[in-house]
Amino acid sequence: MTAADAYAALLSHHHRIAALEDAASILSWDQETCMPPAGAAQRAESRGALAAVLHGLRTDPRLPDWIAAAEAADLDEAGRADLREAARSHALSTRVPADLAEALAREASATHRVWAQAQAERDPAAFLPALDRMLSLRRQEAQALSGGGGDPYDALLDQYEPGASAAALAETFARLRAGLTALLDRIAGAPQAPQARGRFPQAAQLALARAAAEACGYDWRVGRLDLAVHPFSSGGGRDVRITTRVREDDPMECLYSTLHETGHALYELGVDEALLGRPAGGHASMGVHESQSRLWENHVGRAAAAAPAIHRMAEAHLGDMGLAGPDAFHAAANAVQPGFIRTAADEAQYDLHILLRFDLERALLSGDLPAEDLPQAWDERFEADFGRRPSNAAEGCLQDVHWSEGLIGYFPTYTLGNMGAAALMQRLREDEPALDAALGQGDFRPVLDWLRPRIHAPGRIKPVAALWTDAVGAPPDETALLAHLEAKFAPLHGL
Amino acid sequence: MTAADAYAALLSHHHRIAALEDAASILSWDQETCMPPAGAAQRAESRGALAAVLHGLRTDPRLPDWIAAAEAADLDEAGRADLREAARSHALSTRVPADLAEALAREASATHRVWAQAQAERDPAAFLPALDRMLSLRRQEAQALSGGGGDPYDALLDQYEPGASAAALAETFARLRAGLTALLDRIAGAPQAPQARGRFPQAAQLALARAAAEACGYDWRVGRLDLAVHPFSSGGGRDVRITTRVREDDPMECLYSTLHETGHALYELGVDEALLGRPAGGHASMGVHESQSRLWENHVGRAAAAAPAIHRMAEAHLGDMGLAGPDAFHAAANAVQPGFIRTAADEAQYDLHILLRFDLERALLSGDLPAEDLPQAWDERFEADFGRRPSNAAEGCLQDVHWSEGLIGYFPTYTLGNMGAAALMQRLREDEPALDAALGQGDFRPVLDWLRPRIHAPGRIKPVAALWTDAVGAPPDETALLAHLEAKFAPLHGL
Repeated sequence: MTAADAYAALLSHHHRIAALEDAASILSWDQETCMPPAGAAQRAESRGALAAVLHGLRTDPRLPDWIAAAEAADLDEAGRADLREAARSHALSTRVPADLAEALAREASATHRVWAQAQAERDPAAFLPALDRMLSLRRQEAQALSGGGGDPYDALLDQYEPGASAAALAETFARLRAGLTALLDRIAGAPQAPQARGRFPQAAQLALARAAAEACGYDWRVGRLDLAVHPFSSGGGRDVRITTRVREDDPMECLYSTLHETGHALYELGVDEALLGRPAGGHASMGVHESQSRLWENHVGRAAAAAPAIHRMAEAHLGDMGLAGPDAFHAAANAVQPGFIRTAADEAQYDLHILLRFDLERALLSGDLPAEDLPQAWDERFEADFGRRPSNAAEGCLQDVHWSEGLIGYFPTYTLGNMGAAALMQRLREDEPALDAALGQGDFRPVLDWLRPRIHAPGRIKPVAALWTDAVGAPPDETALLAHLEAKFAPLHGL
Repeated sequence: MTAADAYAALLSHHHRIAALEDAASILSWDQETCMPPAGAAQRAESRGALAAVLHGLRTDPRLPDWIAAAEAADLDEAGRADLREAARSHALSTRVPADLAEALAREASATHRVWAQAQAERDPAAFLPALDRMLSLRRQEAQALSGGGGDPYDALLDQYEPGASAAALAETFARLRAGLTALLDRIAGAPQAPQARGRFPQAAQLALARAAAEACGYDWRVGRLDLAVHPFSSGGGRDVRITTRVREDDPMECLYSTLHETGHALYELGVDEALLGRPAGGHASMGVHESQSRLWENHVGRAAAAAPAIHRMAEAHLGDMGLAGPDAFHAAANAVQPGFIRTAADEAQYDLHILLRFDLERALLSGDLPAEDLPQAWDERFEADFGRRPSNAAEGCLQDVHWSEGLIGYFPTYTLGNMGAAALMQRLREDEPALDAALGQGDFRPVLDWLRPRIHAPGRIKPVAALWTDAVGAPPDETALLAHLEAKFAPLHGL
């Protein structure tokens, strides 16, 4: 087999993997949006069976031979990245036995069902045994991935954020926490911004959500918007879907959830078409992914400069919101409120939610924190960080979908995303001095145009650190984020 | 390996097949109801890849050994049926090479896309080259299935209706056609029944559709209703979905399309839970399937006895329809009109639509009718049978989805279903003398209760002929259907 033939065989195999990953993505989307409730057990079987097929393809014993033979081929940067990412994928997959991979997929589906019920009934005791089983499976996975060496948490984290380590994150996060705490202390005494008043029907909110997503550049030929309990985006290639949720007394949640998911979707949709289905296609890391969602949600949707345009769009669909003008809308959209829910948290507090989860899930995984003690540990830590205590588990440890699906090591990518979004916007403003004027007129195209070649199009061609270095000079840390928060929240609170 | 172990291995393997078939069903449903338009090419890749995986599982070389070894096991009737159906599935699958199976799946998706566009533009020339490619693949499939012997059409027909032959069908159909022609000749001079008048909003029609499906026993915990260009039902086990379509000037289409698909869904939902995922699970044949859809659509939904209940339900959702009472509603729901669309055809003409397609698709497959000549052949045959000529291809040869997906040999199962439904109702009325009184009060439960043990629960335990013989004394022919049509249409037209 020539080097070129080996490379072609590798690509063909990965196209098949990508096609079945797309199928798995549709099954997952359908489960959250469309599936009849009694179909859950059956769906768990389907997802488990498909995961087993994918595991078989990802661990195909011919892959190392193809990769080794293709090293001699005349490949460009993307082709070299195909070999690097194929080798990484194969290594990660072969370390996890097929029966464990299938058990994880099946348990994720079953545990998710238990979580949804427990959340609805605010009954953590109904969820914790399932979480304990899931943690046990994830520990086995971490052990298999790392070969028993190093921090098991790092082995899981690496799946979402290649090259990251919990110890290094903990250092950056410590500096970030100090900065956040200092900012919050200064905000604490300031008066709270008035919120939108009224009842905003679901249909009108969804129409606004669609208009806002379109304004960012989202295209219904390759996407759709549906309702879900916990909003998410899913898919890749030319079918990337977003979901949102509606509270009729709070128009901000639907709008900003939608912008968040739109950011995720625009990233996937922006990957160079030539990379689709290839190992070098898709997203570079979940931290990079979250940088895109947070950028559109907070640095466009909640920017002071964009407030005239967003406020106009909101009033066009929702009518009078009881907010006197763009400044009042901006203050309401960035209000620092004593809430409990991560997804509804303002930027000043959001990362404290993440740091809480980061510490708790490390303790859960290591076993230092038994699953049964989670509700109490959550509430105590929350009170220590935020100065208030959740009144029930639905606004405490049952609020997020992640752990129910076995996502351990995923939460820190949100804060990596916030740091990355701030760094990107800092550089974008330097490159585009007229940006704020465009945002004020509702012209968000300069943002997408700037992101596309730098972040979206390369997919996984560059390692994560190189992607950041090429785009903004260095991998992001807490500095740009803290500077951004100071610039936004100091004027809002007269600091 | 013991006989019991071999049987267990066989069942485990088939459960995995069933789980992936469920996944394929969701991909197909999503394509028709949710998928963004630009996702079609990618979806074709996913469906092709999943079809290849399923083909690999269905042709697993261990299957014949398991089946042979399990013959010595102590099995009940269902267990014996597992072995019979597993052997049939393996034989059918091994005869079709993997690359042909994948090409068929991929081409079905692509051709379907071409058809939808061609239908929208009423442009048969845009569709016929794709149909020609599809026919060529189906000929290769028929050749592979039959080993080159016998009628290639029978090889395809057998996939949908085990044991059926085109020659035998042609004899029954000739007698049916004579009876239908005689009935239509007598109806031809009678005045036409007035139709519903007004504009009936989509939301109200869908609410009626949901109420009607519920009245038949359909349960939203295991189902859902969506819109599709061509209504279909899909899924199995505890997730069986239906679709419908709405014309705001004609409330009958949505209502009766929904009842039709509800009948399909109730069949799948009624299979004994102990059979789910097993070779003996699922439906006995497509003719049996269609007998269920047509029974609920025509023998319940369009029955004179049920007209008071259905009319009341329709008016509750749609308001005044311009129909004076149950008799007028019944006449409108059974009007014999000079239409062109099979799915909108009345019972008196419906099977003439099928016999037309049966003859044309046999000629297309044999090559006697080149695909490029289809529009003219369709229009000529239609004019000969119905005395009128389609004005465009959307009401002619482009009206049905079937050929675009490669379904050749499927159409006759509709008429098998009509004959079966009539035979079932004949026997049900003998067993349940109070049936009509119950239908008139909107109590359809006796129908489902009678069908469940006789038709639904057995799945594939019995061969098709035995299922019919046990339920109604013999496999159905044209006699009960012609008697039913005479009993319904003679009074409606004063014959």
